[in-house]
Amino acid sequence: MLDHGFVRVIDYMGDDSSIVQAARVSSGSGTKSAEENRRLIRYLMRHAHTSPFEMCEIKLHIKLPIFVARQWIRHRTASVNEYSGRYSVLGRDYYIPRPDVVAVQSTSSRQGRGEALPYADANEVVGMIGRNADEAYRTYERLLDGSTDPIRPGLARELARTVLPVGFYTEWYWKIDLHNLLHFLELRLATDAQYEIRAYAEQVAAIVAGWVPLTYEAFVDYRLSGVRLSRAAAVAISEALTGVHVRRQENGLTDSEWKDLKERFGFVEDDRA
Amino acid sequence: MLDHGFVRVIDYMGDDSSIVQAARVSSGSGTKSAEENRRLIRYLMRHAHTSPFEMCEIKLHIKLPIFVARQWIRHRTASVNEYSGRYSVLGRDYYIPRPDVVAVQSTSSRQGRGEALPYADANEVVGMIGRNADEAYRTYERLLDGSTDPIRPGLARELARTVLPVGFYTEWYWKIDLHNLLHFLELRLATDAQYEIRAYAEQVAAIVAGWVPLTYEAFVDYRLSGVRLSRAAAVAISEALTGVHVRRQENGLTDSEWKDLKERFGFVEDDRA
Amino acid sequence: MLDHGFVRVIDYMGDDSSIVQAARVSSGSGTKSAEENRRLIRYLMRHAHTSPFEMCEIKLHIKLPIFVARQWIRHRTASVNEYSGRYSVLGRDYYIPRPDVVAVQSTSSRQGRGEALPYADANEVVGMIGRNADEAYRTYERLLDGSTDPIRPGLARELARTVLPVGFYTEWYWKIDLHNLLHFLELRLATDAQYEIRAYAEQVAAIVAGWVPLTYEAFVDYRLSGVRLSRAAAVAISEALTGVHVRRQENGLTDSEWKDLKERFGFVEDDRA
Amino acid sequence: MLDHGFVRVIDYMGDDSSIVQAARVSSGSGTKSAEENRRLIRYLMRHAHTSPFEMCEIKLHIKLPIFVARQWIRHRTASVNEYSGRYSVLGRDYYIPRPDVVAVQSTSSRQGRGEALPYADANEVVGMIGRNADEAYRTYERLLDGSTDPIRPGLARELARTVLPVGFYTEWYWKIDLHNLLHFLELRLATDAQYEIRAYAEQVAAIVAGWVPLTYEAFVDYRLSGVRLSRAAAVAISEALTGVHVRRQENGLTDSEWKDLKERFGFVEDDRA
Repeated sequence: MLDHGFVRVIDYMGDDSSIVQAARVSSGSGTKSAEENRRLIRYLMRHAHTSPFEMCEIKLHIKLPIFVARQWIRHRTASVNEYSGRYSVLGRDYYIPRPDVVAVQSTSSRQGRGEALPYADANEVVGMIGRNADEAYRTYERLLDGSTDPIRPGLARELARTVLPVGFYTEWYWKIDLHNLLHFLELRLATDAQYEIRAYAEQVAAIVAGWVPLTYEAFVDYRLSGVRLSRAAAVAISEALTGVHVRRQENGLTDSEWKDLKERFGFVEDDRA
Repeated sequence: MLDHGFVRVIDYMGDDSSIVQAARVSSGSGTKSAEENRRLIRYLMRHAHTSPFEMCEIKLHIKLPIFVARQWIRHRTASVNEYSGRYSVLGRDYYIPRPDVVAVQSTSSRQGRGEALPYADANEVVGMIGRNADEAYRTYERLLDGSTDPIRPGLARELARTVLPVGFYTEWYWKIDLHNLLHFLELRLATDAQYEIRAYAEQVAAIVAGWVPLTYEAFVDYRLSGVRLSRAAAVAISEALTGVHVRRQENGLTDSEWKDLKERFGFVEDDRA
Repeated sequence: MLDHGFVRVIDYMGDDSSIVQAARVSSGSGTKSAEENRRLIRYLMRHAHTSPFEMCEIKLHIKLPIFVARQWIRHRTASVNEYSGRYSVLGRDYYIPRPDVVAVQSTSSRQGRGEALPYADANEVVGMIGRNADEAYRTYERLLDGSTDPIRPGLARELARTVLPVGFYTEWYWKIDLHNLLHFLELRLATDAQYEIRAYAEQVAAIVAGWVPLTYEAFVDYRLSGVRLSRAAAVAISEALTGVHVRRQENGLTDSEWKDLKERFGFVEDDRA
Repeated sequence: MLDHGFVRVIDYMGDDSSIVQAARVSSGSGTKSAEENRRLIRYLMRHAHTSPFEMCEIKLHIKLPIFVARQWIRHRTASVNEYSGRYSVLGRDYYIPRPDVVAVQSTSSRQGRGEALPYADANEVVGMIGRNADEAYRTYERLLDGSTDPIRPGLARELARTVLPVGFYTEWYWKIDLHNLLHFLELRLATDAQYEIRAYAEQVAAIVAGWVPLTYEAFVDYRLSGVRLSRAAAVAISEALTGVHVRRQENGLTDSEWKDLKERFGFVEDDRA
């Protein structure tokens, strides 16, 4: 993952059949055919019956930059054991973006990237990030080892680490149930998620697709590639489908909702005055 | 469990070694001997480093009376799939206490039991509970089947079930991590927990003792059979150990704290005026 | 609420402006006009930026039947203090449905109600439920008071209560943040929620509408009255809008999805072979 | 707080009387005198009846270094809105320890500080930390502004921030209920917590002491200044109190437990062979 990261599966509990099994406790019904299992999982996903998906659990070992970890930890329903910079010396690995993802600040969104920089400029950026990190790590080592007289026997690790940039890597064990993992994926696979965490989310998604294929298929169909329509958007579509001319000014849709409708559905509005 | 209940393990993830493994991610240290593992687990338990215990997970299938389920569900950190009385017809099983646990209201505690009733009286109580449950279930069946003209095709299950007492059994899958499970056990094995849920907690404790023996041993030593002293109690003990006469009126201990100290430690107070 | 229940507000923290305030901490921007606040709240709701809604909190005192409480408690992110049947004697109030909501089991859904019963039959049902509850409460009282010689001083309350049906009322304080409250409302205002909890959800919704009107309006527009389309449904609509004949057999939509599309959008499928 | 931080109260809900009120819902009893309220709160604290404490809520605005925020966020039961380095430019403030808390790595604990450095050496450390932070911030600004031809219009903020050390300050709104706040305080006021987060915990504790004085007093007496004894330690104390010679080799206590007993209780062991 990225330049020095990884995601590896340590352990898991349950699979697609465990979800079916749990759902059937609720409904008091027995085992069924494979096709009925698929249909049941899709039904649960479609109707947001989330508790059976909590019956599966996965534990991952992840190495990731601190700024990614800071986004990741906001998902509060997981269990975490992180490498401690108080207890141990942190490694030398830091994140350097590949030149093709070194991009300017987006002008259309306040929290995103626009165009990639030209290769030479991207390289210049990469160089600046690298030099900054190397310099910080050298400071970290000097603070730690105390060999530089007179700092003896070396600064406390918990203080020395404060000089390291958030681009440095950390590691953790992360354990989460499948329902909450799908929620994590929905948010972190989204196009407005930062590229670096999205890269991890894609790897985690591939793991999920292999682990619980029926659930992952239903997740893609009903959540990831599905669409949420507001009341006004649903009305606009309904009118358009029944041949009514939809006029924007009579409708509560915002600019961005109109834009979404047009892009997603080839929607044509009647903009005659 | 009780007369019609059960607790059975459906699945689990991890064991004592997973706790050690997770703790060593935090500290960055490698594998060790069995004795060191035991010592590490005891250290984690003693110092309330709880996150490594979250790395183990267990899923149980439990059949239990509704009033027990209502206490149990207050532990919010678990995942639950319960048999649905909206979806399916509820079974005929209800809880009848064994005569030796049919007891009067405690006079010393507002929320507990006192002495067991004499056998004949207990039997009378058991009979009253049983007749009440049988009568309720007959009403439930009559409401459901609609065969009693003119209730056709039978009352909705979600309404009919409202006549059933909380002594009837329900079933669920319950999945929880080991840290939260130990918290459940600490509360529900306590002497002031209701007998019926304590009986389940004891069975769950036996399962835990077999699953993660080092953790369970540490749990018993540091939490279950340990003692929490208030500041004032700690001062009183400290004074007594150093030969000071401890006088109750000079100390902020409540009556029940004095009583606990005496019972637990054979504590002698100096009650000269 | 229902025949003996209530929902009353004990306390709350924050309002629409607190949500705006919290969102602006994230974005580092200052205060704005009322119209901009409304737009920001709608933006947050539309894009599922949920954390600012967690900054509001409400505490309710609720009296509700036990079977409703059992559904309600499944929302784990709230804090609860419930009246204890171990500690105190439970009251005589139980739930009797109004005749117009006494309905047969649904034939189209396994977990719902169909047609209301004719008035005379509904009255018969009401009578059966009432007699069952009265009988149970008499048993409860006899077990408790011990006046029936020789049960003296009366059975423990924690045991006696096991004879009471789940239609009896309980009371609790319930405290939850606004984000999780909206999730509760979305699930419990849905047409497939049981009528009795839906009635409470409607009252809670009215409280929320008065407390945070901008948030509630956005919630209705984007979540409650919005539509979630699966990938296949979105493709079908897109094709229909651009004049393509949509044929069911070429599409992964289930029967119930087709039905939803038709009802919601007046969707016409091309069913020529 | 520290050099550039702060903790300020934005809002709160409830106080000591709300805890009493909630506890009395559970027990069905009415209002009482002030002294009885104090006794009830102490009873709840002593017996770990935690749910009434969840009925109070507080919202704080906190400015804190990122490395402190990373420890803080591990308390998962709170709500957080953090200033976003993707959305806005981060400020220039970073943490520089006061010379008297610049300490060497502890030799007795793997995760702590030992002696403070001599003043001159501490100053040297402070200088290194400051130069490192200044240099990083200069790199950040150069990446952002793009004025260095040809980086135009400036690197995306979400990438540029990766060069900033974890000693830089961030800000957030943090909202938590009182029960979970006390748990936070118990862990973060402990002597083995890192000095910097302990400094914040002390300020938060002062806020709590002013907000809910009865609760805070009980918290100090029963939890913060209380003692947890293991089973073996309780047995050792019990024996010592009754005049038995306690021999270490016959007892399961670890070295550090013996040490604690001696320090806390002036405990004398009988070490005759």
